Amino acid sequence: MTTAYDIKDASLKDAGVGRILWAERSMPVLRAIRERFEKEKPLEGMKIAACLHVTTETANLARTLQAGGAHVRLCASNPLSTQDETAAALALEYGIDTFAVRGAERDHYYQHIDSALTFGDEGPDITMDDGADLVSQLHSKRTNLLDGVLAGTEETTTGVIRLRSMTADGALKYPIIAVNDADTKHFFDNRYGTGQSTLDGILRATNILLAGMDVVIAGYGWCGRGLADRARGMGARVIITEIEPVRALQAHMDGFTVLPMAEAAKIGDVFVTLTGDKHVLRKEHFEAMKDGAILCNSGHFDVEIDIPTLEEMASEHRTPKPLIDEYVLSGGRSIFLLAQGRLVNLSAAEGHPASVMDMSFANQALSSEWLVKNAEGMEPQVLSVPKEIDRDVARLKLECMGVRIDTLTAEQEKYLSSWEEGT
Amino acid sequence: MTTAYDIKDASLKDAGVGRILWAERSMPVLRAIRERFEKEKPLEGMKIAACLHVTTETANLARTLQAGGAHVRLCASNPLSTQDETAAALALEYGIDTFAVRGAERDHYYQHIDSALTFGDEGPDITMDDGADLVSQLHSKRTNLLDGVLAGTEETTTGVIRLRSMTADGALKYPIIAVNDADTKHFFDNRYGTGQSTLDGILRATNILLAGMDVVIAGYGWCGRGLADRARGMGARVIITEIEPVRALQAHMDGFTVLPMAEAAKIGDVFVTLTGDKHVLRKEHFEAMKDGAILCNSGHFDVEIDIPTLEEMASEHRTPKPLIDEYVLSGGRSIFLLAQGRLVNLSAAEGHPASVMDMSFANQALSSEWLVKNAEGMEPQVLSVPKEIDRDVARLKLECMGVRIDTLTAEQEKYLSSWEEGT
Amino acid sequence: MTTAYDIKDASLKDAGVGRILWAERSMPVLRAIRERFEKEKPLEGMKIAACLHVTTETANLARTLQAGGAHVRLCASNPLSTQDETAAALALEYGIDTFAVRGAERDHYYQHIDSALTFGDEGPDITMDDGADLVSQLHSKRTNLLDGVLAGTEETTTGVIRLRSMTADGALKYPIIAVNDADTKHFFDNRYGTGQSTLDGILRATNILLAGMDVVIAGYGWCGRGLADRARGMGARVIITEIEPVRALQAHMDGFTVLPMAEAAKIGDVFVTLTGDKHVLRKEHFEAMKDGAILCNSGHFDVEIDIPTLEEMASEHRTPKPLIDEYVLSGGRSIFLLAQGRLVNLSAAEGHPASVMDMSFANQALSSEWLVKNAEGMEPQVLSVPKEIDRDVARLKLECMGVRIDTLTAEQEKYLSSWEEGT
Amino acid sequence: MTTAYDIKDASLKDAGVGRILWAERSMPVLRAIRERFEKEKPLEGMKIAACLHVTTETANLARTLQAGGAHVRLCASNPLSTQDETAAALALEYGIDTFAVRGAERDHYYQHIDSALTFGDEGPDITMDDGADLVSQLHSKRTNLLDGVLAGTEETTTGVIRLRSMTADGALKYPIIAVNDADTKHFFDNRYGTGQSTLDGILRATNILLAGMDVVIAGYGWCGRGLADRARGMGARVIITEIEPVRALQAHMDGFTVLPMAEAAKIGDVFVTLTGDKHVLRKEHFEAMKDGAILCNSGHFDVEIDIPTLEEMASEHRTPKPLIDEYVLSGGRSIFLLAQGRLVNLSAAEGHPASVMDMSFANQALSSEWLVKNAEGMEPQVLSVPKEIDRDVARLKLECMGVRIDTLTAEQEKYLSSWEEGT
Repeated sequence: MTTAYDIKDASLKDAGVGRILWAERSMPVLRAIRERFEKEKPLEGMKIAACLHVTTETANLARTLQAGGAHVRLCASNPLSTQDETAAALALEYGIDTFAVRGAERDHYYQHIDSALTFGDEGPDITMDDGADLVSQLHSKRTNLLDGVLAGTEETTTGVIRLRSMTADGALKYPIIAVNDADTKHFFDNRYGTGQSTLDGILRATNILLAGMDVVIAGYGWCGRGLADRARGMGARVIITEIEPVRALQAHMDGFTVLPMAEAAKIGDVFVTLTGDKHVLRKEHFEAMKDGAILCNSGHFDVEIDIPTLEEMASEHRTPKPLIDEYVLSGGRSIFLLAQGRLVNLSAAEGHPASVMDMSFANQALSSEWLVKNAEGMEPQVLSVPKEIDRDVARLKLECMGVRIDTLTAEQEKYLSSWEEGT
Repeated sequence: MTTAYDIKDASLKDAGVGRILWAERSMPVLRAIRERFEKEKPLEGMKIAACLHVTTETANLARTLQAGGAHVRLCASNPLSTQDETAAALALEYGIDTFAVRGAERDHYYQHIDSALTFGDEGPDITMDDGADLVSQLHSKRTNLLDGVLAGTEETTTGVIRLRSMTADGALKYPIIAVNDADTKHFFDNRYGTGQSTLDGILRATNILLAGMDVVIAGYGWCGRGLADRARGMGARVIITEIEPVRALQAHMDGFTVLPMAEAAKIGDVFVTLTGDKHVLRKEHFEAMKDGAILCNSGHFDVEIDIPTLEEMASEHRTPKPLIDEYVLSGGRSIFLLAQGRLVNLSAAEGHPASVMDMSFANQALSSEWLVKNAEGMEPQVLSVPKEIDRDVARLKLECMGVRIDTLTAEQEKYLSSWEEGT
Repeated sequence: MTTAYDIKDASLKDAGVGRILWAERSMPVLRAIRERFEKEKPLEGMKIAACLHVTTETANLARTLQAGGAHVRLCASNPLSTQDETAAALALEYGIDTFAVRGAERDHYYQHIDSALTFGDEGPDITMDDGADLVSQLHSKRTNLLDGVLAGTEETTTGVIRLRSMTADGALKYPIIAVNDADTKHFFDNRYGTGQSTLDGILRATNILLAGMDVVIAGYGWCGRGLADRARGMGARVIITEIEPVRALQAHMDGFTVLPMAEAAKIGDVFVTLTGDKHVLRKEHFEAMKDGAILCNSGHFDVEIDIPTLEEMASEHRTPKPLIDEYVLSGGRSIFLLAQGRLVNLSAAEGHPASVMDMSFANQALSSEWLVKNAEGMEPQVLSVPKEIDRDVARLKLECMGVRIDTLTAEQEKYLSSWEEGT
Repeated sequence: MTTAYDIKDASLKDAGVGRILWAERSMPVLRAIRERFEKEKPLEGMKIAACLHVTTETANLARTLQAGGAHVRLCASNPLSTQDETAAALALEYGIDTFAVRGAERDHYYQHIDSALTFGDEGPDITMDDGADLVSQLHSKRTNLLDGVLAGTEETTTGVIRLRSMTADGALKYPIIAVNDADTKHFFDNRYGTGQSTLDGILRATNILLAGMDVVIAGYGWCGRGLADRARGMGARVIITEIEPVRALQAHMDGFTVLPMAEAAKIGDVFVTLTGDKHVLRKEHFEAMKDGAILCNSGHFDVEIDIPTLEEMASEHRTPKPLIDEYVLSGGRSIFLLAQGRLVNLSAAEGHPASVMDMSFANQALSSEWLVKNAEGMEPQVLSVPKEIDRDVARLKLECMGVRIDTLTAEQEKYLSSWEEGT
């Protein structure tokens, strides 16, 4: 069978292979799973439609699924995060059907999702999504392909929020595992991954000095607090905005300044949104900001900053450096937007480091295997990653890093299950 | 009705009152609840048997329950944590039945529990426990008092572990709310409270310089990670021991060194146990430790360090300062044990600061009110704190501190409940 | 020769000995010096008048000087920092002339300084000072004893500032080594010692939760930045006030908020002064503070907070806990002053941990030895600690802690002294 | 007069101008100086030979010197740090003689230095150096141009070490200001600049996750401790190697692990050298390293890692990604070298952020002005930046950032200069 693809530039293949192998060095858990899958073929015959950031880490996931016997069709979950050399290597070196071109326009992007969904006349057995665009397309425009779908997985918080809305509406047609719920996913990928890579994106785009800056972070979920720790670690003063009292209280007790955005807007040098919601930065905030304010987004969709309004407000638009748009507002103040408001860690840097994606994608691979064995006949619903998968991933990761831990003695196990022994 | 009590020294009353009012300044949420309880009397006629650390913060809780109309009988949940001046003030100024003497021997301690349980011929309507000693006594030795009990609350992780064992054994006879499960309890009390107060206890006992020391922390639960952050914040190098892979991995990714205790024992200058389990430090570890190693416990019970064995191993025993026991082992190495292995934050310092207990005890007070309304006829089981109580406590705390947060716009609420809008 | 002394309570001797030996465990460098001094007697016949905080660490310094052959007369450099049990042990166990009573009134305090200065009809050969009170007394009221003085040492920044003023006025009559200038003194004692012990004092006095608090620190010298790091490490938000642009800029770049005190006064929950100057907190600031603000001082003298004015402004004065004075201002706001504005780390806690004083006092002991050999005929002036002493102290400390470091290879030494080899 | 230049690509001019103006936004102090220089022309007629990293920040310095009336000839101080678009803009937009091509070979590099030194038949009036390559060349190969040289400035620690060796040898022929000695240079540029930009370089080259890694930092000078803080801030465990006891002790007390390199080599995931010395990582260390170890240098010269020996030891050499060289050693272990061992922050990222260079280069510009007024007739020597310049730079920077600080009251000034007032 020949490989189907729509990629930017075939000549980038070798560069892509080099980088995929470089990433693989930091993904020992996924490699161990791939080696097992090669022998056991647990995904034999499965058609998997995957809509993920087309990066070197995803390439190693795709190779793992393929090794397990699956037929994978891959499209991008964000037009700006695609690495064209990775796409080239996937299609031309590893024989994986790949539809991804960096910077693709909206229509082209959705056409790629359609390509990923279509296996000849059939739809996929399993969907693998990152933000629920593919699932949404399948449930609204391509319902003809829904019939044979067994199950799916979803990578992000944002996607899970959408899936829960679909479930509440009775719209969801098959069970989907929320990979983000796994401790080995959200504790690590959201926190350490987003924290570092968001700063990395900001630095690559701007080369500003973070020390001494006021960085405003909208949202104190796992991603937000990961970023807050890292920004403080770089010497910034961090201001948090929140809508949820318990989180706000935590941010306050963690030593950050908590303010409503209307106040924070006047102070911030850099603003980052990670809320999963819309228009977190909007007209009233743009009006209050200082000259030189830098805005970016590390939430899944590019709606967290109200860019259309910013464009309307601007009397002039410049591009001082690639990935930086300067909007000159009335009175001469300039506001700088990074990466067009798309995920700054993927658009301006390389996304999560391979080491965290190792665990997220190990959860993806093992969840797929589990679904093949268990999903038959399940109700449409959002499922958690089974606890034993979560713990296996952690145990395997520690082993790969050479970190040893304790085990309970018999006496200790007994003590934990008794209740008579007291003070 | 006259007040019943067994306290150390009536002359300490005034000192106790001063300190209770000082603590009250940091407990605005509980004060607000007390003011409402005084008007609404939601606990009218309830007999509450409370086994808690007899500290200034507990005094403010007892005053709140009393203001709500309850008859409270209070005993200590740990013989070393009792503040005798607080006990005196409770009995003599506030008219609360109090049975607590610092340093009480085992028999005296259990006699106090019995006193707290006995309201004339009857038992309590509600039990309020911290470590489940009172509940355990009631279910084993004082079963005659079990009949009329409506419900209970439990403050600690350790206690909840015991209650879950009781439930599994079918031994538990009434429903109990696990206050520790509230986000506004365990995020704050376990983390910030235990973190700071454990260091405080170590410093008051030893006056050592933490900067540059190797501090070994057994257990990376909420308490352990709170302490790890603070110890690092004081300039220590922190080593974590764990038995649970996901937690161990987090500790590693948080930049701590993760080791089995057998390795850590050779390196540590200071050891702190916060696991809820038994003999976390034991013979094999004592044998490996350096001369001068300092041991203490911040877990609920004094069983985490195997003290009997340490005593057996010692050729000599000294007390260089109050709260420090020196054990001279063969070869001349000395190991120093703080506060006899009891909760170092309560025994050598003053326990959690009032500001965190404000939230924990607000959950206690509101949970009691909820139980009076809802517990009738419930199955024996361990319940979570109702979410609305948790959120109310957080909201009230933010208000009291003058911290304002954002609210969702209508557009944002709508966006969060939709699933069609995507990339 | 009998020992002369004025102490509080002879019965405290044994408690004092226990604590002095406990401190000695953390002072291996000073112990090593004492062992050498016992053999070599480099201070034979020297009369040393020492005005230092009478703590367990100072006791070990006095023992070291005595072992070197000196006759030491010791008085307190602060009436509130004296540990009465240490004074008792010094006089009665170690035979050192000691004049120190905790809480001594002003006249009693100066009478002790006079006692320390007077060796029969003679004055001292060497003065050892902490804040320059003894030197000031000697140069103003006891000039008759000045004649035979060979040299002196001074421990603190504050004292050195006074000595430099004296030098500028031509008032200083003999050379004095500024021990504070040694890297192994100010980097460690000022930074790690003051940082930790100031927080320790605040916690012992108040038991407040630092996490989430706004802590205002006046002064970003070595002490101030040590405290700022630790306060942040405990979860506080830290605000710095400064008068020196380079330091203010550093504080800003270190991620702290820099404000004029007039602004900071409105925000702070806790205020700490460490400037070496007068009335850093004064009327205009008291008027701006929030209800409940806590004030303390960790600078040498109790003049940094304008307490007389605070007293005048207060309509009421209470003492809710020992070491806390409550001043009720008009409008009902309360301001709380800790330890009467004296050094909070010494008055409410135990001062610098022994481990840092080990290095400071090793510099003191070795500087005394150096002065005996070199001070004859030197001009009156403020001298630095000789570099070789500084480095020896560091090397010895590392050895005692078992920390090994690298040495240059021959090739590397050569490279460092060449200039031709380039890009 | 036409502009002389040797640059890579004239078509990059516009991109260069955009980036120079972007950097200028973060350099308000230098801009203020430029505006004054334009009016006052304090460098009128001066010939300045500058050997600096050819980056956007340097471009703004060159524009400032030019505005002051100087004729500037600029060459690169490191072949890998040159930004070709900046060079193009300098030569073609701003009319500054520029000799810099990224990746120039050794001969080409030294030819550029010669070009910068030669103003027709004459040499420069002032030299401005970064690492002392230009000064070294002038004193060894181009001594004919030495005669008219008035003075110079040197930017780096490494250069100053070389200049001190020259002075000790009697080789230096004119006075040079060590700009690195300015507090507003080394506190900020070395610490915050190198700290952030070194991590930035590592991340751009590798995209590894720093959280949980063991990062070995050779050298705990200002650069090393800046990096150590940042690496810890990103979640890494940091190991320090040092040869100087006081610094090693500080690293230990700051909570880092201090080890000899022979031990650290076995543990590290990433190694960074910042020592100013040669072969800090060498054969014995390569032999001990783990498979996958990543090596880089952030010290001035590429001699800190013994690359020739690493190449000899390797059985195979690959380039998995640009800027990463993989050396496969016997037994199959791979060691990865970043940016060929050249300054990783300049070679793999963009060097110090403009915000810190603003202060460093303000010192450069003001030192040049000072030298023109004061250097006539001075002895050859290494001079410090005059204190008033240092303070002016700090004051100006605070103003530009809108940070206000306190000033002493009259009473406070008086107190600081008095010595009688005491306890």
